[in-house]
Amino acid sequence: MAEYPANDFTIRPIGRVESPLASTADAPRQGDEGAPEAYLILNSDVLAGLEGIAVGDVIIVLTWLHQADRSILRVHPRDDLSRSEQGVFNTRSSSRPNPIGLHRVRVLGIDGLRVRVSDLEAIDGTPIVDLKPVLGSIEER
Amino acid sequence: MAEYPANDFTIRPIGRVESPLASTADAPRQGDEGAPEAYLILNSDVLAGLEGIAVGDVIIVLTWLHQADRSILRVHPRDDLSRSEQGVFNTRSSSRPNPIGLHRVRVLGIDGLRVRVSDLEAIDGTPIVDLKPVLGSIEER
Repeated sequence: MAEYPANDFTIRPIGRVESPLASTADAPRQGDEGAPEAYLILNSDVLAGLEGIAVGDVIIVLTWLHQADRSILRVHPRDDLSRSEQGVFNTRSSSRPNPIGLHRVRVLGIDGLRVRVSDLEAIDGTPIVDLKPVLGSIEER
Repeated sequence: MAEYPANDFTIRPIGRVESPLASTADAPRQGDEGAPEAYLILNSDVLAGLEGIAVGDVIIVLTWLHQADRSILRVHPRDDLSRSEQGVFNTRSSSRPNPIGLHRVRVLGIDGLRVRVSDLEAIDGTPIVDLKPVLGSIEER
């Protein structure tokens, strides 16, 4: 059976995370499991893209989990060996073919290219790929 | 000020969308604004990653919006010229430096590498980058 032509695409990071979390061993599994405040350090060439983001907003940060193993397709959820292996697409494991992290955070402060956010489990130096607003109800869009 | 070294990363799609939506002109702006059912056609080499996904699950599909203009940093929200321009990171516009789409859908059927889903506004042929479960409460993880 013919497969879709395997066109690849290039991610060019728009910034990086600055965090007290030095390694994944220090990091909680999800942002709401005790993750610290952190800074999003954006590149100067994307400054115009931040316009309209305000303190108090809840946003989705997309990262590239640069330490992930992209060859893994099955994992024990939360590294718990008592749980049966699952396909990575049924887990939030960082191990997956395209290791994009999704992080829901609140904006605590904005100073030019430095955005302070709550509850980010990504480690120091993690490349940032995109920022998106959380969608409100249809009437609010 | 020194910028983060611009390491790029390569997205290798894991499949593509099969949809009655032939072009973005036909597509609603968001999945919950009248988007049709569609199929996720996964590549055979990621089959093991699907294990555990079941009919009825709500999942997040990440796509690469391959027709997007990556050079745009400011847009009128929803192409409504009566609204002031915003930074793309404060909108869900497909125009953005790394055009990754986030789509929340329900799994309606699974047949090997073909996954039928609800409410997908991505057009026919859109590359699929990742699938993730929606996170439940902390107790359910």
